[in-house]
Amino acid sequence: MTVRLLVCATCRAGEAVEDGRPVPGARLAAALEAGGAPDGVALQRVECLSACGQGCAVALCAPGRWSYVYGRLTEADAPDILTGAAAYAAAPDGLVPWRERPAIFRKQSLARLPPIGEPE
Amino acid sequence: MTVRLLVCATCRAGEAVEDGRPVPGARLAAALEAGGAPDGVALQRVECLSACGQGCAVALCAPGRWSYVYGRLTEADAPDILTGAAAYAAAPDGLVPWRERPAIFRKQSLARLPPIGEPE
Repeated sequence: MTVRLLVCATCRAGEAVEDGRPVPGARLAAALEAGGAPDGVALQRVECLSACGQGCAVALCAPGRWSYVYGRLTEADAPDILTGAAAYAAAPDGLVPWRERPAIFRKQSLARLPPIGEPE
Repeated sequence: MTVRLLVCATCRAGEAVEDGRPVPGARLAAALEAGGAPDGVALQRVECLSACGQGCAVALCAPGRWSYVYGRLTEADAPDILTGAAAYAAAPDGLVPWRERPAIFRKQSLARLPPIGEPE
């Protein structure tokens, strides 16, 4: 299964927009793309994860798995985000042991959602 | 389709735990249950939405729809949460026009996620 790493590429993260400089979300997306998506991870830019007050933000999701949203990220976090995404992709159920998650994933969770299906 | 309204029933929302008094998440869950789930909404307690720093939190989700997570909620918000959940259930794609969303949903979004499926 390929999991999705979504990155909000429109996030301003509270910064003033500077002429000619990409917004922080676009810079984070570019840094992730430059790092290269790990095996089993599809990197996808999205327009807004509605986490504007806690941006920049990324999300990890896949059918039948818990979804995770992380925030307060910058382009400097791209290597750790990719490492964490690889661990999520490699875990059969997406549940990565706590200690094996990057610190930014342990400390900067915005939300998680159980697998989305019909109510039991 | 029945949509799911998830409420984190373990959230302490930064409060000290008081002997004999349910935590804020449990009080919010009880207020929602007392209000009664609208048609097409399945109310479900969950143990943690990992939004601890912005609790109490609820989420709306269903297969093929955008998911939403809202935070900084209290039991006093239960009526508005139920109204917003009903609007989400009634919208065929889950996309409720901005002005028809309760103020707490417009102002207290923690995150949203696009419909979860295989990468395109």
